[in-house]
Amino acid sequence: MAGYGLVITSLDVKDIRFPTSLEAHGSDAMHGDPDYSCAYVIINLENSDLKGYGLTFTLGRGTEVVTRAVHSLSYLAVGKSLNDIYNDFAGFWRVITSESQLRWIGPEKGVIHLATAAIMNALWDLWARLENKPLWKLLTDLPPDKIVSTVDFRYISDVVTKEEAIRILEKSQKMKKEREEEMRIAGYPAYTTQPGWLGYKPEKVRELCKAYMDKGFRAFKIKVGSDLDSDRERCKMVRNIIGWENILMTDANQVWDVEEAIEWMKNLAEFKPYWIEEPTSPDDVLGHKRIAEGLAEFGIKVATGEMCSNRIMFKQFMQINALHFCQIDSCRLGGVNEILAVYFMAKKLNVPVCPHAGGVGLCEMVQHLQIFDYICLSGTKKDRYIEYVDQEHEHFEDTIVMRNAHYVAPTMPGYSTKFKESTIHDYEYPNGNVWRKILAQRI
Amino acid sequence: MAGYGLVITSLDVKDIRFPTSLEAHGSDAMHGDPDYSCAYVIINLENSDLKGYGLTFTLGRGTEVVTRAVHSLSYLAVGKSLNDIYNDFAGFWRVITSESQLRWIGPEKGVIHLATAAIMNALWDLWARLENKPLWKLLTDLPPDKIVSTVDFRYISDVVTKEEAIRILEKSQKMKKEREEEMRIAGYPAYTTQPGWLGYKPEKVRELCKAYMDKGFRAFKIKVGSDLDSDRERCKMVRNIIGWENILMTDANQVWDVEEAIEWMKNLAEFKPYWIEEPTSPDDVLGHKRIAEGLAEFGIKVATGEMCSNRIMFKQFMQINALHFCQIDSCRLGGVNEILAVYFMAKKLNVPVCPHAGGVGLCEMVQHLQIFDYICLSGTKKDRYIEYVDQEHEHFEDTIVMRNAHYVAPTMPGYSTKFKESTIHDYEYPNGNVWRKILAQRI
Repeated sequence: MAGYGLVITSLDVKDIRFPTSLEAHGSDAMHGDPDYSCAYVIINLENSDLKGYGLTFTLGRGTEVVTRAVHSLSYLAVGKSLNDIYNDFAGFWRVITSESQLRWIGPEKGVIHLATAAIMNALWDLWARLENKPLWKLLTDLPPDKIVSTVDFRYISDVVTKEEAIRILEKSQKMKKEREEEMRIAGYPAYTTQPGWLGYKPEKVRELCKAYMDKGFRAFKIKVGSDLDSDRERCKMVRNIIGWENILMTDANQVWDVEEAIEWMKNLAEFKPYWIEEPTSPDDVLGHKRIAEGLAEFGIKVATGEMCSNRIMFKQFMQINALHFCQIDSCRLGGVNEILAVYFMAKKLNVPVCPHAGGVGLCEMVQHLQIFDYICLSGTKKDRYIEYVDQEHEHFEDTIVMRNAHYVAPTMPGYSTKFKESTIHDYEYPNGNVWRKILAQRI
Repeated sequence: MAGYGLVITSLDVKDIRFPTSLEAHGSDAMHGDPDYSCAYVIINLENSDLKGYGLTFTLGRGTEVVTRAVHSLSYLAVGKSLNDIYNDFAGFWRVITSESQLRWIGPEKGVIHLATAAIMNALWDLWARLENKPLWKLLTDLPPDKIVSTVDFRYISDVVTKEEAIRILEKSQKMKKEREEEMRIAGYPAYTTQPGWLGYKPEKVRELCKAYMDKGFRAFKIKVGSDLDSDRERCKMVRNIIGWENILMTDANQVWDVEEAIEWMKNLAEFKPYWIEEPTSPDDVLGHKRIAEGLAEFGIKVATGEMCSNRIMFKQFMQINALHFCQIDSCRLGGVNEILAVYFMAKKLNVPVCPHAGGVGLCEMVQHLQIFDYICLSGTKKDRYIEYVDQEHEHFEDTIVMRNAHYVAPTMPGYSTKFKESTIHDYEYPNGNVWRKILAQRI
């Protein structure tokens, strides 16, 4: 296509924040006053109105640091043609993640990797727009060798190689059409965290559980870890409403030490939690392994991943069964390129992926990824759900479509992360309309 | 002391860069054009001329991101009295590393943790100045329960507890005086990386090896990993000069995949490397374990740590013998508080610590730490060295003193990281005198 000759002229970077802390949405045992936010990137091209839109999810103040990092990285993209990038996308990813002076402050983790994600996500959005397809469809239509060419296999070749990944993809080719149809009509199953935030009062939890049961949800996640008595109360209350035939997940957001996690969860075992998510430090592979073993006799599995820094950490978690559910995050990892690497390893090691979502734009993004996984990799929905939270969707032009607690495959071109103009006007920090009012009141 | 009532009024944050890339100092397989740099923090107090000086080492462009993060964190220190901080230093560390909106962009890793290090390092410098002691002497004089009170044991209690750490420290009390004397006179042994940079020509390597032999050095580290033939040439050349009775370390700076590391190093085994440092991704605990096992029969040990993000990663490396030498970095970890946690685990698990140094101010800092380790924890220098590189020392007021390839215990109050005024004048980026000239030439 002609468009691939276009040259990137600049990246706009915006600090977008939503004042969610005012109502305790998103509160958990580690994050008391989250303002759901994002570093938002717009890629501009020479002589074209076409743009790419990408973001990385952040919380309030963190955004100012991540936007600074995007600025520092952006010179690597400016001046490149789209051919330069998409003809060797793994090579470009390597350039971004190995920048000689910026690599030191990661590498491949934290701020610099979140900034990488914002840029790479915008590039994937742009590619899908260029092909006039939603991202999941771009991915499913690409030939196996082309998909795999976007992935840097450095540091994971001991688990999966490029050649194996191609073979895995080739196997699913003949099932693609049928699965696509299913995703367009029935969609991909979701669970919800909506009733579960720690800051919510019991009545609100009860009310939301009922409301989401009515919407067709059959899997519910609640936050635990601040107070054992109150955790038991909440588990009991939620079980009373959703019954024993439905799924109850629990999420500790990293509050415990290793042995403490095991002890605490034993006390919740009678409520039959499907999984305990983030029981301890997201960096503690061996700790998760110990917790998984300690809770095996109680039938409680371990989930983690939203703060798992990169493919190398996921590799280890999966190599030794330290997690049972792999919760990739579309911004924590370095864009779709690295997420594909994790999906390949999960397929090879037979671990179900249940993406982390919520926040800002995460639901919008991960639906594309998980639909691709179903069509081209796993071919099953067993033990697999996408997280769902009803928040900040109204800000996107191509918002998610839920049908009977399923994500319906998006139809608009791109990665579904383009904000409405009005959102930028209102929520850019600190000069958007909404923030000017809030900050004036705080003085 | 009266000074503990003083209140912090502000933190100055400076972007200091040295144009080292012009001469290929510090070049390795991953970092082709390093400008040795740092984010430099000055803590100002109300009604006092006393200040604290701390830094975190960075490379060029990375500094602008880290300084931004220090600005975002600094509100947590401003307004606090020194009593507030030093009476519960672990509590303050927890506040900094758990800030509700900034934790997300780490946690405890990358940019935000480097920024934490700069602030915590400045607070330790300030404490030592207040006590009118060099940092190592502050540490060795503190009672065991007070030292341990500075450490957050979250996530490591499965390996070492507060009570165990106190017991470990109590054991060394009666040996302290004698060991202190030794450190003031003979000092702590060093190895040098000076001849080893990849960007150096053979003649320069040869010349530097000889020069450092003459200075009394008996352990030398060279960079490997770009080209096997050239690695073999360099190893041979260095062995010819230093002989077989001295120590040759090798450092790959993360270039290899797991199996590749084993294969490559087999080809260098005949040169008897003491260790291979950073053979693969710094995040790959299980990969290092595999490499350690694969190289055991060749007598090559594994060293890593300069990019090990935090105590949780070090915990795992040491739990399963995935490293044989623990190379703490005084800026990568969240200040002395977290470094102490790693020293406690190393002592418990019987792993020698050989700190990473070089860069900007790293030698200045780690000498204090390793001297403390000798006096209060390990009590031995067996298999232990501090890295030494002769670079950027001239910028510090309290520069290191080397005697026969040993670091002699510092005598001036503080953590040895206060820059001379002229350095700030010349190297602050982009408006220092030196940078104004360089940047004018580049236009």
